[in-house]
Amino acid sequence: MREVFVTGIGSTVFGRHRDTAIETLAARAGAEAIRQSGVERDQIGTVYLGNFISGPLNGKEVLAGIVADRLGLSGNIPCTKVEGACASGGIAFRHAWLAVAYGMCDVALVIGVEKMTHASTSQVTSALNCAMDNELDAPSGLTFPGLFGLAWRSYEHKYGLSREDVASVVIKNKSNGLINPLAQMGATLTFDEIAASSMIADPLQLFDCCPASDGAAALILTSKEFASKSAKQPVRVLSSVQTSGAPQIAKHLDLCSFEATVKAANQAFQLAQVRPAHVNVVELHDCFSIAEIIDSEDLGLIPRGEGARWARDGRTTVNGDVAINPSGGLLAKGHPVGATGVGQIYEVVAQLRGEHPNQVQGAKIGLTHNLGGTGVACTVNLFGVV
Amino acid sequence: MREVFVTGIGSTVFGRHRDTAIETLAARAGAEAIRQSGVERDQIGTVYLGNFISGPLNGKEVLAGIVADRLGLSGNIPCTKVEGACASGGIAFRHAWLAVAYGMCDVALVIGVEKMTHASTSQVTSALNCAMDNELDAPSGLTFPGLFGLAWRSYEHKYGLSREDVASVVIKNKSNGLINPLAQMGATLTFDEIAASSMIADPLQLFDCCPASDGAAALILTSKEFASKSAKQPVRVLSSVQTSGAPQIAKHLDLCSFEATVKAANQAFQLAQVRPAHVNVVELHDCFSIAEIIDSEDLGLIPRGEGARWARDGRTTVNGDVAINPSGGLLAKGHPVGATGVGQIYEVVAQLRGEHPNQVQGAKIGLTHNLGGTGVACTVNLFGVV
Repeated sequence: MREVFVTGIGSTVFGRHRDTAIETLAARAGAEAIRQSGVERDQIGTVYLGNFISGPLNGKEVLAGIVADRLGLSGNIPCTKVEGACASGGIAFRHAWLAVAYGMCDVALVIGVEKMTHASTSQVTSALNCAMDNELDAPSGLTFPGLFGLAWRSYEHKYGLSREDVASVVIKNKSNGLINPLAQMGATLTFDEIAASSMIADPLQLFDCCPASDGAAALILTSKEFASKSAKQPVRVLSSVQTSGAPQIAKHLDLCSFEATVKAANQAFQLAQVRPAHVNVVELHDCFSIAEIIDSEDLGLIPRGEGARWARDGRTTVNGDVAINPSGGLLAKGHPVGATGVGQIYEVVAQLRGEHPNQVQGAKIGLTHNLGGTGVACTVNLFGVV
Repeated sequence: MREVFVTGIGSTVFGRHRDTAIETLAARAGAEAIRQSGVERDQIGTVYLGNFISGPLNGKEVLAGIVADRLGLSGNIPCTKVEGACASGGIAFRHAWLAVAYGMCDVALVIGVEKMTHASTSQVTSALNCAMDNELDAPSGLTFPGLFGLAWRSYEHKYGLSREDVASVVIKNKSNGLINPLAQMGATLTFDEIAASSMIADPLQLFDCCPASDGAAALILTSKEFASKSAKQPVRVLSSVQTSGAPQIAKHLDLCSFEATVKAANQAFQLAQVRPAHVNVVELHDCFSIAEIIDSEDLGLIPRGEGARWARDGRTTVNGDVAINPSGGLLAKGHPVGATGVGQIYEVVAQLRGEHPNQVQGAKIGLTHNLGGTGVACTVNLFGVV
């Protein structure tokens, strides 16, 4: 396999873009990534676009080809949309990485995009529930807040956990989001404000849940030869792993862990020959506050059962033992579903270049983690400076 | 690149499956392909599933992971849904081929699936129109029958064409469908019956249009080593090409041709070192009768402007110069959108094994062609007997 580098990144602000078409959001992010990388449009050999629910919410599909057209890409190159619920963006990235790593092409464009805020809450909830195993799990009546509410209770029972512990994740990520100009919902929040917010799915309250978002992010990946010509510092992809897991909640024997994350992380660290302790900066899938605690343990970054304590003790802040979600994460930066996995890589690349507005000092190794559905799809990627 | 073989094929009947869930259709086809190939489930290294509009029509996504779960696949392997409108199945196949050809794994499962007939005509039309460039083409008011109606008029103007010429495609494919037990709408039709059928989008009449369909098809692809252990005769993939083209109708300078098909066919023939004249059996994307005429010319099988004449003269029947759509094609076998590209390969593999119910005698080289949207996505694949 060849070495692969990220040489250009682009992103819209995550938030509300009601008057902008989904393909326009995607094209804006893509154009920025292309411009930054310095590649010519006719050097791009393939496009992968991650999107989850543009069909139900926007009545638009074949977005990979349509966005390539908007970007003026020529040469009839293969343009592919991939979908894996909330992991769609990470899966798009992995396929672009495979294309360059295996020598199918030298330059690949990755785009993640979603547009949700124009739809009603019930439309958005129905669309998001497309990521459930609706045939077998529908009788449970669970939505995703319900699943993560169960996970919270399960974690509380198994390891012990307080409302304060979980709130410390929210306070950190919302505070990080305030520093990130791309973030939708940064805020200075107190514990009392979090504890007073509406109950969504007991024990999850409003601020424990990521918002619905519009947005797009994009990356240019290249071979080493192309990376050497890049104006910006190239960031190397150390490994990229995609896994699957049980689609039904009942099949998860332990709701304090997602097997797909554990397997992906183990493989990613092994392939990259990196250990969790080497990781300086992490963007992980905090769709709910409790998810950050579970994910950080599943990724091997924090010992099992200690995630809540680490959060409470401030060990996951930008100056902590390991910086988790300095972007604000899904909770504060937002969660335009198909864009999220690509946006995480945007953030980590900015960190490894030393150009992030919420910079982790001296960051050399970064990790991204993107989880779909009830853990049915997952990607974990490791990045390093050259 | 390594040689890749199709060693197992599976398919549901194409037609109405109102009481069967989409994931069940997919799993049935997948289980048949696995069983036939003789591989063990834990030897499967990746799953690609092609689907277009399960989100809007079934409220179900992440189908790759969900279907893998139904099939009892273990090991947390990567499971990816790809989407490229009507070319979704072909794109799924190409990605599985890439995975084996580039040595990412030795055994890959491809599934294509769609479930449409439970929805109302207006729901289906809206969902299919997700394949249009709705932002830029919406003002034209065109649906897909409208586009292919324009193509017919354009061909008529440029090369000359009669209602009888186009009807001969319908008569042939409907007649072929009668012989295929998987086909939805085989029929013995006369010219007068076709000419008397309802007008859909002038000049396209009812029998010129493929039906809405439910169905799934699946393939097992393996490396040469695994293929040598196969019970059934392995069929070699000679080449697989995916291209893109203009998503807006106005950008097609010539409606008598789809650039994505021309480019994909040229590349596929070049990579396989095969010439169009060598091809014995073809399954191509006859979503409308006129499309078969255009596609057969775009693929280089018939000289430009002569497709109508070849059809009228019977040169594309199962005993003709080149057998086109002996399965019945989309017109008669049906068009469960995401399944179509995989189903075409099912048919060609059966032909090259000499086991097809509508066998092309002595078939050695087969071609499949799957076209999405307004020509925005295309795959062309060539197959040969070992």
